Amino acid sequence: MNQNLTTDRQTFATHLECSITGERYEADQLHGLSRAGRPLLVRYDLDAVRSAISRDTIEARPTDLWRWRELLPVRQTANIVSLGEIETPLVPLTKSGGPNVLVKDEGRLPTGSFKARGLVMAVAMAKELGVKKIAMPTNGNAGAALAAYATRCGIETIVFCPDDTPEINVREIAMQGARVWRVNGLIDDCGAIVGKGAAEGRWFDFSTLKEPYRIEGKKTMGLELAAQFGWKLPDAIFYPTGGGTGLIGMWKAFDELEKLGWIGSERPKMFAVQASGCAPIVRAFEAGEEHAERWEDASTVAAGIRVPKAVGDFLILRAVRESGGQALAVGDPAILKAVEAAAKQDGLLLCPEGGATLAAYHQALNTGLVDEDDKVVLFNCATGLKYPMPEAPQALDRTQPIDFDAL
Amino acid sequence: MNQNLTTDRQTFATHLECSITGERYEADQLHGLSRAGRPLLVRYDLDAVRSAISRDTIEARPTDLWRWRELLPVRQTANIVSLGEIETPLVPLTKSGGPNVLVKDEGRLPTGSFKARGLVMAVAMAKELGVKKIAMPTNGNAGAALAAYATRCGIETIVFCPDDTPEINVREIAMQGARVWRVNGLIDDCGAIVGKGAAEGRWFDFSTLKEPYRIEGKKTMGLELAAQFGWKLPDAIFYPTGGGTGLIGMWKAFDELEKLGWIGSERPKMFAVQASGCAPIVRAFEAGEEHAERWEDASTVAAGIRVPKAVGDFLILRAVRESGGQALAVGDPAILKAVEAAAKQDGLLLCPEGGATLAAYHQALNTGLVDEDDKVVLFNCATGLKYPMPEAPQALDRTQPIDFDAL
Repeated sequence: MNQNLTTDRQTFATHLECSITGERYEADQLHGLSRAGRPLLVRYDLDAVRSAISRDTIEARPTDLWRWRELLPVRQTANIVSLGEIETPLVPLTKSGGPNVLVKDEGRLPTGSFKARGLVMAVAMAKELGVKKIAMPTNGNAGAALAAYATRCGIETIVFCPDDTPEINVREIAMQGARVWRVNGLIDDCGAIVGKGAAEGRWFDFSTLKEPYRIEGKKTMGLELAAQFGWKLPDAIFYPTGGGTGLIGMWKAFDELEKLGWIGSERPKMFAVQASGCAPIVRAFEAGEEHAERWEDASTVAAGIRVPKAVGDFLILRAVRESGGQALAVGDPAILKAVEAAAKQDGLLLCPEGGATLAAYHQALNTGLVDEDDKVVLFNCATGLKYPMPEAPQALDRTQPIDFDAL
Repeated sequence: MNQNLTTDRQTFATHLECSITGERYEADQLHGLSRAGRPLLVRYDLDAVRSAISRDTIEARPTDLWRWRELLPVRQTANIVSLGEIETPLVPLTKSGGPNVLVKDEGRLPTGSFKARGLVMAVAMAKELGVKKIAMPTNGNAGAALAAYATRCGIETIVFCPDDTPEINVREIAMQGARVWRVNGLIDDCGAIVGKGAAEGRWFDFSTLKEPYRIEGKKTMGLELAAQFGWKLPDAIFYPTGGGTGLIGMWKAFDELEKLGWIGSERPKMFAVQASGCAPIVRAFEAGEEHAERWEDASTVAAGIRVPKAVGDFLILRAVRESGGQALAVGDPAILKAVEAAAKQDGLLLCPEGGATLAAYHQALNTGLVDEDDKVVLFNCATGLKYPMPEAPQALDRTQPIDFDAL
């Protein structure tokens, strides 16, 4: 039906590189972290891409994630495992945001979150490279996306999540065919279990940035933005930052697009948004550090960004600094207030992490980091329907006379 | 950004017609039911549309609901109220369905359900026609869509829902700025309250098919299918049928597309899917009746199709019969089994009403109403995330030695 999913197209991945040493690794092989213990980045023959296709080629294709095939690592069309990865819409947030504020509503992706982008790519590559069993630590949404895609192509999955992960996420993961375990700890405690099992050869470790292909999937957020903005980029991007894969991925996307000559050298200011109760990147940014220390006693309503230690910390910090942006922390009250404002004023139900970006935008506006004329994109990383909402207790007894004036 | 939302385009609505008497009503006026108490249908100057645009015109536009502007009733671009009404993807259901089974995943629309299609149109028309206050009875999803769009353009809304409506729906409605009341009754009991207030001039009645524009929004499901299938249509459509607006709307869409010369005269078999615990259309279909009696003591897990009495009953029955399809009832156990099969085998989480269409498909296959070679579309009308899922209680104590073999 969708030609992106059925047409054989060349991919131009040539090799992978260690993100810290530049050491080269072979393409089309199974990889975890580099020998230096850092994420691997996929590299492409961009000169060849430029000769093969143009922006018009892309625009003539159906507008989904797979239209970017030449800039993605999957070789065989048959290995694409898809649940319908649409291009997510940009929704104006006129009243609670401002006249130039757009929300990229990632809650419209399969399994209701932007985790689908990374996992659809990583699972397709796992399929291509013959992986039979995958394990992953998750705060919820990544596990759900992994479960859905892995189930769809017959790969076995085991998922570990903190024991306070919302019930809906845990059930969704199980419903979609994964074995899911609640662990009395945080996501990095879960990650330690996954790592131990992987070291024993029990499964492949799908932790954030520990396999190289999730970032290629998340990269499509940047590619899409470029196309949606007519091959320019917005002035600022506010991105809820836990592991930071998406921020790193977008920064990589912009670089590749410039090398292709499809965009110019201008870049958005990148704002890495964290919660005050778990803000390791903000602390490192402010201290001028290249790496971020683990954040102890992490706590926030925005569970998706409750990541005490990110393996790609230096890549996040580097992108934010190069862009002229900042790392910003917002408190839980501001997050909840922003979620309510967007819903009650603009009819858009954000997730708490999306609310954090709206709160951070107002903070940046108040402190002059951006101004009202700036074209701004906030990332709503998941559907607000997955998160608790306030009670609405009003009831009416229809067997009694109804006082219409009181309704 | 999206030119569909910013470009002024001509619309070709000429008038409305009573669906039972054919009596003519003026366009661009506020209407409820016809004088005969039946739904009004919007009519277009299709000859003029044919002269003005072609299939290529449509295909060159962004793929959202508003690309169909010439076949929609909204006159002024400024009255479009949008939360990003994307074209919903077709997702193959290979294992739990079959090689030719596609799910149209309507859960990707704003507020997570296909109700967004009808309500985005009805609210835009309400805005265009100066409505200030709207009331509606709902089983949940329609109320959420109404709340979101009405809030977005500043129209006041009051929503009444059965008191066993899932908590998530009630909270979503309230969160998005509507006043919501739980009523000790079913949706038609709620409808009676809305009707009474409307008769007193307190608000405008947005009940299913009681205002004429929701059907025009739902019609876009049929328009999209035609475009997605390359201007042919699938062999069969399984549609979860409560009020039936979508089924009626698709049938109208196919008729308009044929008159435009954009599709031929072939039609899918239309299967109206109901739950065994609330199957008024099935009973009327089997009895050869033109209208359906109210179903007493309605009960099903698929609350969205728990509609005891549909004001458009005769339009549903007429479309199903003309198409050579059938009205089919499936039991709650079959519905839940189908939801589980789609999730566990294909990684796609359906809503119960979507599960009902999968169960009905297998029933139709077993009884020879369709065969495996038929290209089939099942409508998943909402994201499965809005519905209860089984518990997943497994827990792991990380402070104790972990038995990896037992994971």
